[in-house]
Amino acid sequence: MSEQYETIIPLDVPKAMRSAFRENYDALTAGKGRLMLFAGDQKVEHLNTDFLGEGISPDDSDPEHLFRIASKAKIGAFATQFGLISRYGMSYPDVPYVVKLNSKTNLVKPLQAEPLSSQWLSVDDVAELKRENGLRILGVGYTFYIGSEHEAQMLREAAQIVRRAHHHGLPVILWSYARGKAVPIEKDPKIIAGAAGVAACLGADFAKVNYPDGADATDRLRDVVRAAGRTKVICSGGGRMGVEPFLRRLHEQIHVSGTSGSATGRNIHQKSLDEAVRFANAVYAMTVDDASITEAMNIYWGDLET
Amino acid sequence: MSEQYETIIPLDVPKAMRSAFRENYDALTAGKGRLMLFAGDQKVEHLNTDFLGEGISPDDSDPEHLFRIASKAKIGAFATQFGLISRYGMSYPDVPYVVKLNSKTNLVKPLQAEPLSSQWLSVDDVAELKRENGLRILGVGYTFYIGSEHEAQMLREAAQIVRRAHHHGLPVILWSYARGKAVPIEKDPKIIAGAAGVAACLGADFAKVNYPDGADATDRLRDVVRAAGRTKVICSGGGRMGVEPFLRRLHEQIHVSGTSGSATGRNIHQKSLDEAVRFANAVYAMTVDDASITEAMNIYWGDLET
Amino acid sequence: MSEQYETIIPLDVPKAMRSAFRENYDALTAGKGRLMLFAGDQKVEHLNTDFLGEGISPDDSDPEHLFRIASKAKIGAFATQFGLISRYGMSYPDVPYVVKLNSKTNLVKPLQAEPLSSQWLSVDDVAELKRENGLRILGVGYTFYIGSEHEAQMLREAAQIVRRAHHHGLPVILWSYARGKAVPIEKDPKIIAGAAGVAACLGADFAKVNYPDGADATDRLRDVVRAAGRTKVICSGGGRMGVEPFLRRLHEQIHVSGTSGSATGRNIHQKSLDEAVRFANAVYAMTVDDASITEAMNIYWGDLET
Amino acid sequence: MSEQYETIIPLDVPKAMRSAFRENYDALTAGKGRLMLFAGDQKVEHLNTDFLGEGISPDDSDPEHLFRIASKAKIGAFATQFGLISRYGMSYPDVPYVVKLNSKTNLVKPLQAEPLSSQWLSVDDVAELKRENGLRILGVGYTFYIGSEHEAQMLREAAQIVRRAHHHGLPVILWSYARGKAVPIEKDPKIIAGAAGVAACLGADFAKVNYPDGADATDRLRDVVRAAGRTKVICSGGGRMGVEPFLRRLHEQIHVSGTSGSATGRNIHQKSLDEAVRFANAVYAMTVDDASITEAMNIYWGDLET
Amino acid sequence: MSEQYETIIPLDVPKAMRSAFRENYDALTAGKGRLMLFAGDQKVEHLNTDFLGEGISPDDSDPEHLFRIASKAKIGAFATQFGLISRYGMSYPDVPYVVKLNSKTNLVKPLQAEPLSSQWLSVDDVAELKRENGLRILGVGYTFYIGSEHEAQMLREAAQIVRRAHHHGLPVILWSYARGKAVPIEKDPKIIAGAAGVAACLGADFAKVNYPDGADATDRLRDVVRAAGRTKVICSGGGRMGVEPFLRRLHEQIHVSGTSGSATGRNIHQKSLDEAVRFANAVYAMTVDDASITEAMNIYWGDLET
Repeated sequence: MSEQYETIIPLDVPKAMRSAFRENYDALTAGKGRLMLFAGDQKVEHLNTDFLGEGISPDDSDPEHLFRIASKAKIGAFATQFGLISRYGMSYPDVPYVVKLNSKTNLVKPLQAEPLSSQWLSVDDVAELKRENGLRILGVGYTFYIGSEHEAQMLREAAQIVRRAHHHGLPVILWSYARGKAVPIEKDPKIIAGAAGVAACLGADFAKVNYPDGADATDRLRDVVRAAGRTKVICSGGGRMGVEPFLRRLHEQIHVSGTSGSATGRNIHQKSLDEAVRFANAVYAMTVDDASITEAMNIYWGDLET
Repeated sequence: MSEQYETIIPLDVPKAMRSAFRENYDALTAGKGRLMLFAGDQKVEHLNTDFLGEGISPDDSDPEHLFRIASKAKIGAFATQFGLISRYGMSYPDVPYVVKLNSKTNLVKPLQAEPLSSQWLSVDDVAELKRENGLRILGVGYTFYIGSEHEAQMLREAAQIVRRAHHHGLPVILWSYARGKAVPIEKDPKIIAGAAGVAACLGADFAKVNYPDGADATDRLRDVVRAAGRTKVICSGGGRMGVEPFLRRLHEQIHVSGTSGSATGRNIHQKSLDEAVRFANAVYAMTVDDASITEAMNIYWGDLET
Repeated sequence: MSEQYETIIPLDVPKAMRSAFRENYDALTAGKGRLMLFAGDQKVEHLNTDFLGEGISPDDSDPEHLFRIASKAKIGAFATQFGLISRYGMSYPDVPYVVKLNSKTNLVKPLQAEPLSSQWLSVDDVAELKRENGLRILGVGYTFYIGSEHEAQMLREAAQIVRRAHHHGLPVILWSYARGKAVPIEKDPKIIAGAAGVAACLGADFAKVNYPDGADATDRLRDVVRAAGRTKVICSGGGRMGVEPFLRRLHEQIHVSGTSGSATGRNIHQKSLDEAVRFANAVYAMTVDDASITEAMNIYWGDLET
Repeated sequence: MSEQYETIIPLDVPKAMRSAFRENYDALTAGKGRLMLFAGDQKVEHLNTDFLGEGISPDDSDPEHLFRIASKAKIGAFATQFGLISRYGMSYPDVPYVVKLNSKTNLVKPLQAEPLSSQWLSVDDVAELKRENGLRILGVGYTFYIGSEHEAQMLREAAQIVRRAHHHGLPVILWSYARGKAVPIEKDPKIIAGAAGVAACLGADFAKVNYPDGADATDRLRDVVRAAGRTKVICSGGGRMGVEPFLRRLHEQIHVSGTSGSATGRNIHQKSLDEAVRFANAVYAMTVDDASITEAMNIYWGDLET
Repeated sequence: MSEQYETIIPLDVPKAMRSAFRENYDALTAGKGRLMLFAGDQKVEHLNTDFLGEGISPDDSDPEHLFRIASKAKIGAFATQFGLISRYGMSYPDVPYVVKLNSKTNLVKPLQAEPLSSQWLSVDDVAELKRENGLRILGVGYTFYIGSEHEAQMLREAAQIVRRAHHHGLPVILWSYARGKAVPIEKDPKIIAGAAGVAACLGADFAKVNYPDGADATDRLRDVVRAAGRTKVICSGGGRMGVEPFLRRLHEQIHVSGTSGSATGRNIHQKSLDEAVRFANAVYAMTVDDASITEAMNIYWGDLET
């Protein structure tokens, strides 16, 4: 798939910004249309639970761990909040960033109140941060929840973020989820396909979706990819898994289901720096360079230096 | 009816934009005041259910199917979201588009919470997309729900969209529905007539309404058309139907009830590309060119090449 | 009363706009301070129920009926929504209009949810429509509901509309009602007097109020008029009534209770065009020209040509 | 206290506006730091109940009664809504005004819904009204309710009004109340002291508070005054009282509790014009000129002409 | 720790404002990265309860007490509301201020309604107050509550305040709390660490957090400090404590847990002026100058003059 790849630049990118968009997009995807996203917005989304506890490397208790990984590993982009990038970016100027524009904590559960995650800052703020500092900010991200009673607010923010990001030549990744009392099974493949389609209608360049539940997940994920059309689908890494099953699943996602990348967070950063870097490199090789499972495992084991 | 047709340009179209409005309106209606709308906003409204499943052509699982139909068939306009047009428009530059400015999913049901569909983007965004790319965007669309506890917000957005669209010389189609706990029967003819009248008061050029329930639907739809006055009424295609009953009903809508067009979505795009194009052509011939049921069926069967 | 009449121009009308305001006010009131308002916002407020059904002339099923009446009868102004004026105004350029800036349907009842009617368009939009087309727009209207839990939003919108309309030299009529769970009896004379006083505090030029319930309605309406001070009170026509009782009541309203006009909707437009015109003329003669009941009845019967 | 009085001008008054602020403040307080406020916002707050009924002078049924009193009596300022000032100000150009920027009716009770009173117009609107007409507008007023679930909105509006009013050189009086389900006893002295402290934090020049309940009200009111610091406290007149008890209580408020003025509404305007003027003069003499109870009673009885 | 201290200036501070930011930051922390914050926003947060009552010095009943302490004691900054600074700042021009941009009362409890504290004024308002008056305003503060159903609104306001404050070269302190029905134990160390991490993601320069509950609070606070990364943590003083236990705990916070300062309110201002100053000086010596417990106690007892 990556061979016949050619960037399609959406028409809401003004003509004067199309080469900038293409550069950002190609940087995100190594010119191959495949995005390896190191997703690091969990300090808000999951609070400190993801960063401290049993089975988590002590390295992860310091937010700088994320930046260290991002600077040493091969990644497409590291997605995190504006505030962290502002405070660590001067030490990690070469990291490719995606600014996550909204986040919510997980304290209020859907049974208590419908999920709402609001935009924190504008795309113009991001563009100014990039221009002022020459940071490698390659795109922006935003989460929406269909099925929430606050869906209308989030769909509107998402659409306007896409519009404005494209105006600045920045690709957009939409975290596309279903959540709320109206959504009994968040990982129902039909709902995931629906969410991916919504992301496409909103104009997303990438839809980050949940991995479907069920024995036929690989096939169902193919439906999801199809539903998104020209909007590319990347799959969440989800909860902690063993390295090999993770890579095996990722290989299937890309080569059987047809996703255009991966979004991995906890499975990377909960490891020690060294292991996290090797694992991220393995994920990158598989996502972008079409590495086989064995090749990726070798990278993880450190047999292949990258 | 189409013979004595002459475009009435609403007075909130500035004088400098009246010829642009007339051109857009005449392009939408082939200069005959009749609009064949290919309605394709269901990827949000109904998620993936309308695009994948039993009785649906596999062609329909790819969003590009909609654009392929729109480019090959005779249509007045293809209505869909901004994001899809941005991403497929460069491949389908000749399609006449209507940008649907809001959409909601069907996950939250009226018994859980009152329906709300908010505007995603501004009319100015649409105008800029058109200007920048020379796309054939002929109008904008918006859905409102009277009877919802959020009615006030939607009526306000609708009125302001009409105002702004007319400022840009763009006609407006209002999807005019009644929904919410206060509306036990959405297809009650009186309520539909009321919704059409509300659309007229909001300044809509076209009110897209539900087909009324009941044995005397043809007569009741005539009441709806009358209630809308100079605002033209087009009727939703509704759920899946057989081709001949569909065309028979459409013929009645236009020639007995006096509607000024048709809005068809699933009945077109759930068919394979070839059949969808033939069916759309049949609908177009009947809607715009006063084809008889037999003539339209012949088009559908492919006996008449268009 | 009308003899010693002199327009008091409120101080929030800028000096440069005071002659424009005076002209609009005098046109509304025939230079006599009495306003005969033909109130035609029911296509939203009551949906199609007011326009089609038993006892309603078939003429009324077409929205143009309202414009035909407004152009043939003597009226102070015809109040309706912006969208209708935009679409019919080119055919009825001599009608004096009041643009009703908000409207809600009657589907959601107060026991389900508190009433909210939001502003649709700005006063600047109205001013532009007038300037661009030379329409005879003489003022704007807005409905508020005290006693609603959304009262705060409506009072704010009303105050700002008055401010902005006066800036443009346009008088304002506030439909001043009490509604919501907190209001058991909407036509309690004390509440009506309160609503009129609120309209005065908001800066309204005219408060359109309900006719009070009760045997001593004439006296209680006098209290209402007094509570409004220099803000003039006009009384809603209310539900369908016979012609003579209607005119008798109106005569009392003006000459005993001291109202400065009348607001009549259904009692006019539910009649056939010819009868509606004669009836409107009778109402006008009584409201503005101090016609007696007999004189007005004669106008209605057509014995006096106007 | 009034001898050593010197105006402290808050620092958010721009330097260029400090002499204007000082003039307004000194005009409000006769250069003595004591404010006699004739509070006349009840036509919204209490509807017509305060203006018509047993024990109320028939004079009070006409809103002009308030202006007549304000023009004939000695007062610091007459506080009422923008709309009334716009309509009566040309007849009463010498009255010192305070524009009350928000008001709510008393129809919805705290047990039904939490109190919310929203800002109607901007301080800029007030400044323009003053400039355009040369009216003696000396300040603005706003009510907030701590303890309401809508507290956040009102505190924000209050803070911004203070900021903007000071920008225009206008002092601000905050009606500082506690109300809502969380406030079982609105006149609990501790809560009143809290409300006065909140007004101080918001930057109010004057906090208008309720008179505390309880036998030791005089002492508790002293706590309130202290809690407000440099923000001056004036006490609401409250419900109808006899003249002598009223003046006796006021004397204690000022000379024992240390308040800097009085806010009197119904106790003034529910009297006939003549009596209202005499009573207002008595209140003024006590508030501003340190009149004794006997002196003030003599003014009320008309023995001393002012 | 303070020896190797060097200010890291976040990248959203524009280049032209970086030296201003550094000056403000160094002034706040005496060039040592340690902040002794005298927190004085309780007149809203706790109403008058913190200022009058048993065990509270009568000095504290006057708001000026806070300013007297702030001007006589060694402090990093005195945090209070804009309105108070506007009214007392001319008398205390040398006090280093932090303007607290939001506050709410404690009347509505979380079981009644979810906590919401909204921004009162803009950072631009603060910058103007500083520029106009040459006040020593060194930063701004804002409180957010994760776990509230209004979390989204507060996170957005917080992020935008950081952005705008940095634009003006002003450091930001975020009061970082968890509150609401979803938060059974506000002082759960994990939740506090989460809140500190959220503050970091929002871009705060300092996160003011609660002191954790539990026997291992010192260790858990170290986790909190780590979770915040380059965002510095300061710990709330909390409720009234004895002087020595307070200082002992503070010493542990800084030297064992690694916090970068202290935030003390009631434990300072509920003392008489003289004692408050000595106590504040002791806190300052320990926070900024690495004083031992004995040294700090000596300062408190007045044996060491500062």
